[in-house]
Amino acid sequence: MAGPGVTAAEARERIRHGEHTGPTVGLAPGHVQANLVIIPEEHALDFSRFCVRNPKPCPVLEITEAGSPVPRTLAPGADLRTDVPRYRVYEAGELVDEPVEIRNYWRGDLVCFLLGCSFTFEAALLAAGLRLAHLDQGRNVPMYATNRECVPSGPFRRPLVVSMRPYRPKGVPRAVSITARYPMMHGSPVHIGDPEALGIGDLEQPDFGDPVDVHDGEIPVFWACGVTPQAAALEAGLPLVITHSPGHMFITDRRDAEYAL
Amino acid sequence: MAGPGVTAAEARERIRHGEHTGPTVGLAPGHVQANLVIIPEEHALDFSRFCVRNPKPCPVLEITEAGSPVPRTLAPGADLRTDVPRYRVYEAGELVDEPVEIRNYWRGDLVCFLLGCSFTFEAALLAAGLRLAHLDQGRNVPMYATNRECVPSGPFRRPLVVSMRPYRPKGVPRAVSITARYPMMHGSPVHIGDPEALGIGDLEQPDFGDPVDVHDGEIPVFWACGVTPQAAALEAGLPLVITHSPGHMFITDRRDAEYAL
Repeated sequence: MAGPGVTAAEARERIRHGEHTGPTVGLAPGHVQANLVIIPEEHALDFSRFCVRNPKPCPVLEITEAGSPVPRTLAPGADLRTDVPRYRVYEAGELVDEPVEIRNYWRGDLVCFLLGCSFTFEAALLAAGLRLAHLDQGRNVPMYATNRECVPSGPFRRPLVVSMRPYRPKGVPRAVSITARYPMMHGSPVHIGDPEALGIGDLEQPDFGDPVDVHDGEIPVFWACGVTPQAAALEAGLPLVITHSPGHMFITDRRDAEYAL
Repeated sequence: MAGPGVTAAEARERIRHGEHTGPTVGLAPGHVQANLVIIPEEHALDFSRFCVRNPKPCPVLEITEAGSPVPRTLAPGADLRTDVPRYRVYEAGELVDEPVEIRNYWRGDLVCFLLGCSFTFEAALLAAGLRLAHLDQGRNVPMYATNRECVPSGPFRRPLVVSMRPYRPKGVPRAVSITARYPMMHGSPVHIGDPEALGIGDLEQPDFGDPVDVHDGEIPVFWACGVTPQAAALEAGLPLVITHSPGHMFITDRRDAEYAL
């Protein structure tokens, strides 16, 4: 189990009181940050099944009770209506608001899914001396829609989204084995090398995030990405879906190292 | 992905036609065998949440659509109404039947959960030269209710059940690291040594399975057990719950090695 998680609770308190409304990267280091997808209970079983069928992009860390904003296993003192720095609210798949709290959108039938995020394995890569090109270049990680369909469930169906990090050949095996230790944070890569085999025509035109320079001799390495479940939820056309805003994650009490195999 | 899975499909066909009604241990070697819990859709989200909250005893490999007996990701050609050698049917928590197929119990609102099973890691232990005392002694693995409550969800709440395998001290680290490679089959042990710390008063009186002799110098090693989700489903008092009969597992097309980290 986690230690007292003081720094995580402190970070959430600052966020709750509007003192931090920006991205969460670097906050409460060592603590698991999570993707958030909130949907009506009516669709929660279908979404849960979608996640079970596609565990690499959709590793579920917690599902809350309908109407409860408390993630009881990840952070029992937190409130998912206020403790994320910025949310995105979608109605019938259309973005209608990007607020700093969602109390006025809250309903008794809403279920929160918290999913593992690549921040955990990125910290492990950095700790092992494997640099992150997007960090070095001051950009967001590039993400791409692929030609690989996820296994559908009910209204949830979409192609896998991947994130890409380039490495030199000698770094690739270490990047694989380090990230494989975190199956609940997308785990090992889904693909190494040829972008075209994933249906990615041009690495310089990511579907989400920013392009990064891939230098001569570097190989693009692709990991399953948490944008997949978010996009699946949006594209299902549900009357209401609420997610975190990109990079504005939920900070849990749990520690990255607890999830390492 | 799995190979053609011929031996698994063949084994299921024999089972479907009543040519094999016994335990499945040793059938279609190398293929993942799974625990089965079938419950009404009304309770499936609560049960899914219970599994997410207690991943070591309850690693979910597949959730079927309500009314569909086809496990589309584990064995798309299978039928969960006929392809398990023996079932147990419970009404309001009471065992009412132990049939070889459940077509006459089937309903349009039933959802099947398939969960990882220790057979996968036991094969890996044996392959590494780590013997299984219960196998050597011709018994079923001993299983114990513990004093550790699972995190509840809706009507699902019960203490963790563990299985026990004794090893000499030099074997214990290898037993840990080998089973840790299979997080979807209960993963690494939850406890090593002192049974009393788990609330187990007498190793010779297991709650399920048979006692095994623990020899001088051997240490009891405890793993989370798939009886936990079964027992949680039964004890919730649902009008109808169907499970596999102990040891009579569902044989999937997927290979053990696919799940190894």
